[in-house]
Amino acid sequence: MLDLLAEAGVECLEDAGADAMDIEHLYVSNMASGEFEGMTGVMNALAHDLGAMTAYTQRVDQTSSSGGADIYAAWQSIASGASEITLLVGGEKTTHQSTADTTDVIASIAHPVEYKTGVTLPSFAGLTARHYLERFDAPRESLAKVGVKKHKNGVDNPNAQFQKKVNLETVLESPIVADPLRLYDLCPITDGSAALLFCPESVAQEYTDEYAVIAGVNGATDTHVVHEREDPTVMGGVVESGKGAYEMSGYGPEDIDVAELHNMFTILEFLQMKGLGFAKQGEAWELVEEGYMERDGELPINTSGGLKSKGHPLGASGVAQGVEIYEHLVGEAGPRQVESDVGLCCNVGGFGNCVITTIMEAAR
Amino acid sequence: MLDLLAEAGVECLEDAGADAMDIEHLYVSNMASGEFEGMTGVMNALAHDLGAMTAYTQRVDQTSSSGGADIYAAWQSIASGASEITLLVGGEKTTHQSTADTTDVIASIAHPVEYKTGVTLPSFAGLTARHYLERFDAPRESLAKVGVKKHKNGVDNPNAQFQKKVNLETVLESPIVADPLRLYDLCPITDGSAALLFCPESVAQEYTDEYAVIAGVNGATDTHVVHEREDPTVMGGVVESGKGAYEMSGYGPEDIDVAELHNMFTILEFLQMKGLGFAKQGEAWELVEEGYMERDGELPINTSGGLKSKGHPLGASGVAQGVEIYEHLVGEAGPRQVESDVGLCCNVGGFGNCVITTIMEAAR
Repeated sequence: MLDLLAEAGVECLEDAGADAMDIEHLYVSNMASGEFEGMTGVMNALAHDLGAMTAYTQRVDQTSSSGGADIYAAWQSIASGASEITLLVGGEKTTHQSTADTTDVIASIAHPVEYKTGVTLPSFAGLTARHYLERFDAPRESLAKVGVKKHKNGVDNPNAQFQKKVNLETVLESPIVADPLRLYDLCPITDGSAALLFCPESVAQEYTDEYAVIAGVNGATDTHVVHEREDPTVMGGVVESGKGAYEMSGYGPEDIDVAELHNMFTILEFLQMKGLGFAKQGEAWELVEEGYMERDGELPINTSGGLKSKGHPLGASGVAQGVEIYEHLVGEAGPRQVESDVGLCCNVGGFGNCVITTIMEAAR
Repeated sequence: MLDLLAEAGVECLEDAGADAMDIEHLYVSNMASGEFEGMTGVMNALAHDLGAMTAYTQRVDQTSSSGGADIYAAWQSIASGASEITLLVGGEKTTHQSTADTTDVIASIAHPVEYKTGVTLPSFAGLTARHYLERFDAPRESLAKVGVKKHKNGVDNPNAQFQKKVNLETVLESPIVADPLRLYDLCPITDGSAALLFCPESVAQEYTDEYAVIAGVNGATDTHVVHEREDPTVMGGVVESGKGAYEMSGYGPEDIDVAELHNMFTILEFLQMKGLGFAKQGEAWELVEEGYMERDGELPINTSGGLKSKGHPLGASGVAQGVEIYEHLVGEAGPRQVESDVGLCCNVGGFGNCVITTIMEAAR
């Protein structure tokens, strides 16, 4: 865990040409180092390992959207004047645990009234997918195509957990997890880390001309008890946080050139496309069929491979979304590069229990 | 846990005359709900239970100084303009676990290289106390008197875990935990919660004339490996965060009228008095003997009863320090009331691994 965090932190500092001693705030997004590894205070250990003492440290937890919360916290640290240089590192280490134990920790995200009935996030997703397919008369294949696309994109991401293509048949014939969702509709269990460096624009310019700016960031909760939601295909947190981020940035859905959505399950990509204004209700699946979200499509989504192929190391995932968009905006995305001035990340906690949306733009 | 958090949150909102629907950011400081209770996402559950949806939520963890970190995070949320009304609630529930299990979670705060040797926070404190007493020729009784004072103050705090006086003999004859520290030199294991409401001063004035203002707040790390410190009686995090908070506020140690220090162990009160400029090196124990920190002394410290008597519910403790100082500044501290314009809280994470100091002043 500490090695993972330090690796991302050191690489980020080197890339920026910054010194660990200059860090004023150090935020670590991590959901459950205590539960997974019996280790708390990881942010203090990281300050030590990076040589960033006496930087102020904090662990930021917003379950599976901890990384997005970390971006929001780092932005606040700069915008409030509390810090001039904030390093945020997201990370999680889980694969040394059994799938059952890891799944139990993740399931504890749910409200106790639902957790106690044995509901897990995949079961929420299965129920939602079944409802969506029937209500909008969408073919099962449209979901599978989301998985296929992700794996195709992941091939070009050297940091992806799975760098291999899969075909439609593989997805459609993989084992059922939560009907109709099958193995390839779900993200894997992943170890990983990611880091971003935040500072005022005037400070960034001392280091480089190639940087990205947070144009808008906002977070919002939906009902914590998932079954209380009026429409299971609407994630209120996506809608509200998206609205907030658009408002703050002055951009709208039509201005977004590239996006990273939180496709922990294939069905979530449809829900977020609608929630963020990229598709009308019930029509996201048609856009998938048309190739709208492919790398060479109208709006490339999850060029990184997304959580499905890149992996989903809980506390790191939202930060990694930010890293992917950053790389596009500064032209460092290599074979995944999309011409872009404005990018968006949507990081979903629990089953939409809290969602953070961030809009970034290239430096002008 | 959720009941504890909701109780403090509701009481705080009622006291302020604010509506849960007006909360824009909701921060929960909590160290280990997952480890202690198998429950994550408590901040989202709290938003639900308070009726504060769609407020943005985040869990703030800085181990035993999570509450101080929560104050810092809430301040940043307001100062950055991200939120107009931020509720912070700190809480921890641990007493349903065995002392061994609880102690193990708390011990996991230490750097792995020290944790693996079996070092716990009380053992660090014992070693430090022995060194302090010998080096500065301080009598064992001076430490015990810190415990006696706390219990005396706690009698007047209706929210204290122990509302009873103890005498010097009781402390000196209690069981040894980490020589020379005995049972009454250590804080207990506690369930508890506390809450504060943050907003811009212009918004506060719409509600009341009686409010307090954050004049300065700062946090800093020290070596995470405790045995690497040059002088075991100096907590670098206390010194640095104190310096930062004094600088930001424009106040100095001489301006502080009342303070809450993090006396998880009696010896820590001596270290913080020195680190924050209230005493010269090696002289804090003499001030205790003189009654300098009594409620009617020169600088009343831990009028709440401190962690020793009020209790130490990890994630709540730093918030509760803030509540105590707030009550003094607005004249609501009842029998504990100290005439004061400026107060200070010092919240220590781990064994000084990260420390947050906050200076508050009464509204003018």
